[in-house]
Amino acid sequence: MPELAFLNGNIMPIEEARVPVEDRGYQFGDAVYEYVAGYKGRLFALEQHLDRLEHSLRALDFPIVSRDQVRRAVIETFKQSGIERAGVYLQISRGVAPRNHAFPAHSQPQIVVTVRHAHETPPEHLQKGIRVVTVTDIRWGRCDIKTVQLLANVLAKQKALESGVEDAIFISNEGVVREGTASNLFIRCADHLLTHPATPQILAGITRSVLIEICGEQGIQVHQQFFDRNTLLSADEVFLTGTSTEVLPVIAIDGRKIADGQPGPTTLNLRRELEKRANQNDV
Amino acid sequence: MPELAFLNGNIMPIEEARVPVEDRGYQFGDAVYEYVAGYKGRLFALEQHLDRLEHSLRALDFPIVSRDQVRRAVIETFKQSGIERAGVYLQISRGVAPRNHAFPAHSQPQIVVTVRHAHETPPEHLQKGIRVVTVTDIRWGRCDIKTVQLLANVLAKQKALESGVEDAIFISNEGVVREGTASNLFIRCADHLLTHPATPQILAGITRSVLIEICGEQGIQVHQQFFDRNTLLSADEVFLTGTSTEVLPVIAIDGRKIADGQPGPTTLNLRRELEKRANQNDV
Repeated sequence: MPELAFLNGNIMPIEEARVPVEDRGYQFGDAVYEYVAGYKGRLFALEQHLDRLEHSLRALDFPIVSRDQVRRAVIETFKQSGIERAGVYLQISRGVAPRNHAFPAHSQPQIVVTVRHAHETPPEHLQKGIRVVTVTDIRWGRCDIKTVQLLANVLAKQKALESGVEDAIFISNEGVVREGTASNLFIRCADHLLTHPATPQILAGITRSVLIEICGEQGIQVHQQFFDRNTLLSADEVFLTGTSTEVLPVIAIDGRKIADGQPGPTTLNLRRELEKRANQNDV
Repeated sequence: MPELAFLNGNIMPIEEARVPVEDRGYQFGDAVYEYVAGYKGRLFALEQHLDRLEHSLRALDFPIVSRDQVRRAVIETFKQSGIERAGVYLQISRGVAPRNHAFPAHSQPQIVVTVRHAHETPPEHLQKGIRVVTVTDIRWGRCDIKTVQLLANVLAKQKALESGVEDAIFISNEGVVREGTASNLFIRCADHLLTHPATPQILAGITRSVLIEICGEQGIQVHQQFFDRNTLLSADEVFLTGTSTEVLPVIAIDGRKIADGQPGPTTLNLRRELEKRANQNDV
């Protein structure tokens, strides 16, 4: 099962895929991306990812990119790889031009797709939950656009690992709990869930939307509202959600146990429901 | 005079220089850079740029990069190009590794240098000054590290051009005036200058330091302190400073004239002093 890349129309081994040093993705982080999960040879929620990609491209005034062309690139590379449980990464940069902050007058967006074996969450993390630390959110003000402006996320994740835990949760200067380094955050307080509203300060995930839908079907109330660190620490359950994160229980934050320090029933129930959908869906 | 690139030891035409799609500079903006000006075949303030580069590399915990190797790469590419008035761009990324937020266990930083004809500020801008707009600062919280997390700068510059002016000035949510999209900002109020202190919210430029030094020699007081938009608009002079900006008068902000709408005497004096140094200095 070869790990492959698609680059502007050609499919090749990932190691051979190279972009010009004056690609604006490289010099300015002027690029957007999506990460799609393949399960049993099918891509989960591909159309929702393409919707969000279009939102990102529009928000940054990119030249027009054909949705069909992107869809074909993703599917073709995924199929050719033959990898059933794949992580499909798609990145589109504004294009290549001599370095200059302003948008180039004419540029051709560069389309890159890579297909690798999925980076799966270790089963013991899914079963037993993970520990996290909180960090100050120093990301830029447009986290709702899925760009490669990710260095703050990188530094937070690294800090978590160096602290001996699995992930970090961003908290704003004013004390608002945002999300994880590559996932959204939900908490349960008694009979309802809380999660940060879809403002420019978070990336409203596809998995987040799917879960809100599932909760709707199951009669679980989800309030999209701001909450602080005290509310987080005193929650009955805490979990992270995302394309590769799926539904991941958080059992300790900054060294303090959440409830009894075990994954909670709502978390486990939602994970099962999400798995069902992932095994039905799509392409 | 060929425009050249250096990539990990080899010098080639810029168009041929390509980096792997899994370069962390491309996927996370996990890269730092410098821009050095060449005047009459000499590089201005190269050692100060290398100092700042080391600060950036350390701040991000990059693997060790040899300063001598970087210096040789910059000088050799500059000399081979034969371009006397050059813009020398240097970018170092953390390295190439399968996509994963955390630092790779082992990675080899990628060193890229490009040498192009300098992007000179149009003479009429230097003589007559430029107009700018103010924009809300949505950049991340570590602007003191010279990274490629530059999309907020790109969007601000583009907004300025689309508003029919030349540049934008960032103002924080709380009303603190920061700097330009690729330059620092000074204002004159009566007999002294004000500029934002070197906090994580600005990139303390080499030209900024050189000018503070020149002011010291000339008995001009420079206060590094916070100021707001009203102070900015009522200043006697406003100017931007930077490696390619040099000392650039600002004559109107958000459609309002600064003083009499002409470049001021301190601005013009400092530009002459800076030019003198640029024509003496270095390699």
